[in-house]
Amino acid sequence: MTIHPTAIVSEHAQVHSSVEIGPFTIVHDNAVIAEGTTIGSNCEIGVPASLGDGSPLRIGANSVIRSHSVFYESSSFGERLVTGHRVTVRELTHAGDGFQIGTLSDIQGHCKIGEYVRFHSNVHVGQHTTIEDYVWVFPYVVFTNDPHPPSEVMQGVRVKSFAAIATMSTILPGVTIGEGALVGACSSVVKDVGDHRIAVGNPARDKGETSAIKLKDGSDRPAYPWKHHFHRGYPENIVAQWLSSVQQYED
Amino acid sequence: MTIHPTAIVSEHAQVHSSVEIGPFTIVHDNAVIAEGTTIGSNCEIGVPASLGDGSPLRIGANSVIRSHSVFYESSSFGERLVTGHRVTVRELTHAGDGFQIGTLSDIQGHCKIGEYVRFHSNVHVGQHTTIEDYVWVFPYVVFTNDPHPPSEVMQGVRVKSFAAIATMSTILPGVTIGEGALVGACSSVVKDVGDHRIAVGNPARDKGETSAIKLKDGSDRPAYPWKHHFHRGYPENIVAQWLSSVQQYED
Amino acid sequence: MTIHPTAIVSEHAQVHSSVEIGPFTIVHDNAVIAEGTTIGSNCEIGVPASLGDGSPLRIGANSVIRSHSVFYESSSFGERLVTGHRVTVRELTHAGDGFQIGTLSDIQGHCKIGEYVRFHSNVHVGQHTTIEDYVWVFPYVVFTNDPHPPSEVMQGVRVKSFAAIATMSTILPGVTIGEGALVGACSSVVKDVGDHRIAVGNPARDKGETSAIKLKDGSDRPAYPWKHHFHRGYPENIVAQWLSSVQQYED
Repeated sequence: MTIHPTAIVSEHAQVHSSVEIGPFTIVHDNAVIAEGTTIGSNCEIGVPASLGDGSPLRIGANSVIRSHSVFYESSSFGERLVTGHRVTVRELTHAGDGFQIGTLSDIQGHCKIGEYVRFHSNVHVGQHTTIEDYVWVFPYVVFTNDPHPPSEVMQGVRVKSFAAIATMSTILPGVTIGEGALVGACSSVVKDVGDHRIAVGNPARDKGETSAIKLKDGSDRPAYPWKHHFHRGYPENIVAQWLSSVQQYED
Repeated sequence: MTIHPTAIVSEHAQVHSSVEIGPFTIVHDNAVIAEGTTIGSNCEIGVPASLGDGSPLRIGANSVIRSHSVFYESSSFGERLVTGHRVTVRELTHAGDGFQIGTLSDIQGHCKIGEYVRFHSNVHVGQHTTIEDYVWVFPYVVFTNDPHPPSEVMQGVRVKSFAAIATMSTILPGVTIGEGALVGACSSVVKDVGDHRIAVGNPARDKGETSAIKLKDGSDRPAYPWKHHFHRGYPENIVAQWLSSVQQYED
Repeated sequence: MTIHPTAIVSEHAQVHSSVEIGPFTIVHDNAVIAEGTTIGSNCEIGVPASLGDGSPLRIGANSVIRSHSVFYESSSFGERLVTGHRVTVRELTHAGDGFQIGTLSDIQGHCKIGEYVRFHSNVHVGQHTTIEDYVWVFPYVVFTNDPHPPSEVMQGVRVKSFAAIATMSTILPGVTIGEGALVGACSSVVKDVGDHRIAVGNPARDKGETSAIKLKDGSDRPAYPWKHHFHRGYPENIVAQWLSSVQQYED
C-alpha cells in the first residue's frame, strides 16, 4: 500500500496492500478497494450515504480513479474501472468490469451498468437508469427519469447492449434504446428506438438501419455494428468473440 | 467548531462555534458562517472577488456545502442552503432560505434567487438572472444574458415562482418564464412563456396549459401545479399553505 | 516563489521564483511555469501523460490558474493564460497568448488554439480541434471529432478568427466555422458555416450576414463584427488595430 502521507485513510476501510492513494485524498470507513488499484489526488472515496443500504463502496482490482473524484458508499464496480477527473458516483449503483467514466460525469445512484460500458466526459445519469453491456455514451448526454418534474414518479431509461448515444443527446423518461442502436448528436429521444435503428433530431425520428452508415476511412465497410472495427482497449477474448460474429455475418 | 486539522480557516472569518469543516478546505478572511452548518472537504469558501462590493460571503444556519465547492465573497444565502459537490458561486448573488444547488452547478454572480429554489446538477446561471420562489431547474439548463455575444449588453432571464425548467433547456436573454410554467426538455426558449403555460422545442412553442398534463402514477390528478402533490423536503408550514390553496382550487 | 507549505511541488519542476502556488496543489516533475503566474488551491499541474511526447507543460508568464484545475504535461500556453475553476486540459494542446478558459471547461488534448481565444464555462473540446485567433466560445458548447462513434476516424473541427459560438451548440466532426461567423444558441452545426454568416438551429441553417444584427444598446450600430464595439480585456495595440479597420470600413 503506497498511501501518500497527506492522504486520510480510515483504519476501518479495507484497502489492499498494493493500492496507491494520492495526496489530499480521503477514504472513509465503508470502502473496500481491491488489489492493483490507483486512486489519484484530492478524491473522496466511500462518502457516507444516508440513503445507502449499509453496504460498502467496492472498487474492483486494477482500477484507476483520477483526481478530484467522489464515490459514495453502497455502490460497486468490477475490475478495471477507469475514471477521468472530477467524477461523481452516488450510492446504490452497480457496474460490471471494465467500466470507463469520463471527466465530470455524474451518476446519481440507483443505476445498473453492465460490462465494458464507456462514458465519455460530462455524462449525466439520472437515478434508475439501466445500461447493458458494451454501451457507448458520448459527452453531455443526459439520462432522465421524471416524466413531469418535479414528482415522485421515476421511469428510468434502459439502454441495450452495443448502443451508442452521441454527444448532447437527452433520453426522456422510460425510453428504451435498442441493441446496437445509434442516437445521433443533439437528439431528444422521446420514444423507444428499435434494435440497430438510427434516431436523430429534436424530437428524434427514425432514420433507418445503422448498417447504412459507411466508415469514412476510405474503406467500403459499414460503420455499424461498431464491434466489427473498433476494438481499442477491450480484452482479447471479447474481441475474438466479436470477430467470430463478423465472420458469421460475412458468410 | 469541529475544524479538521488540515483545514485552513482564516482567523478573520466569522465561523460559529458549531460549524464543521472538512479536510483540505480553505476559508478565506471575508466569510460569515452561521450555526449548525457543515462544510465538506476540499472546498474554497469566501474567495476574494475583485468585482465584489466588500461584503462578506454569508452562509445561513444549518447549511450543508458538499466537497470541492467554491464560493466567492460578497454573496449571501439564507438558512438551510444545501449543495452537491463541485458547486461554484461567484460574487454578488443573494439567495433566500432553503436553496438547493446540485453537483457541478455554476452560478456566475449578480443573481437574485428566492426562497426554496432547487437546482439539480449542472445548472449554469449567467449574470443578472432573477429567480423567484419555489422554482425548479433541472440538469444542464443554461440561463443566458447577452443577446449578441460578445457584447456589453446584459439582459438577464427572469423565472417566476413555481416554474419548472426541464433538462437541457436554454433560456435566451431577457426572457421571462411565467409563474408555474413548464419548459420541456431540450428547449430553446426565445420568447416569454406565460403563467401556467407549457413551452417545448427548439425554438420553443406554446403547447397549452400545464394543467392538461396528468400524473403518470395511476391517479387521475393533474401533474401541475406540482405543489399540489410534490412536497418532499419543504417545511410543513409552507406545504400546509400549498394544500390550502388546493382546497380552494377544488372548491 | 510563494508556495503554500501544504503544496507539493516537485524539485524537478521549473517554477520561476515569482510564482505563487496555493494550498493543497500538486506540481509534478515535468512542468515549466513562467514569472508572475498564480496557481490556486487544489490544482494538479503537469500530470504525467502516457500519450504525451515527453515535453513539459509550459505555462506562460503572468497567468492565473484558478482552484481545482488539472493540466497535463506536453501542453503549452502563452502569456496571460486565465482559467476559471475545475478546468481540465490534457496533453498535446498548444495555445497562444491571452487564452481564457472558463470554469469546468474540458480540453481533451491534441488541439491548436490561437491568440486571445476565450472560452466561457463548460466548453468541451474534442481532440484535434483547431481554433484560430480571437474566437469566442460560450457555455456548454461541444466540439466533436468522430463522424460515426465509436471509431478510429478523427475529423477535428476548425473555427476561424473572430467567430462566436453561442451557448449549448455542438459542432459536428470536420465542420469549419468561418471567420467572424456566428453560431446561434442551441445549434447543431452539421456543415460548414461561411465567413460572416449566421447559422442557427438543429440542424443549423444559414440565416444571412452577421452584419444584419443590430446592437440592443439603443445605438444604430451593427453587433458584428464584434471587434468594432467589444474590447474588454484585450491589449491596447490589438484594439487599436481593430479600430483602424473600422475606420477603413466606415470610409
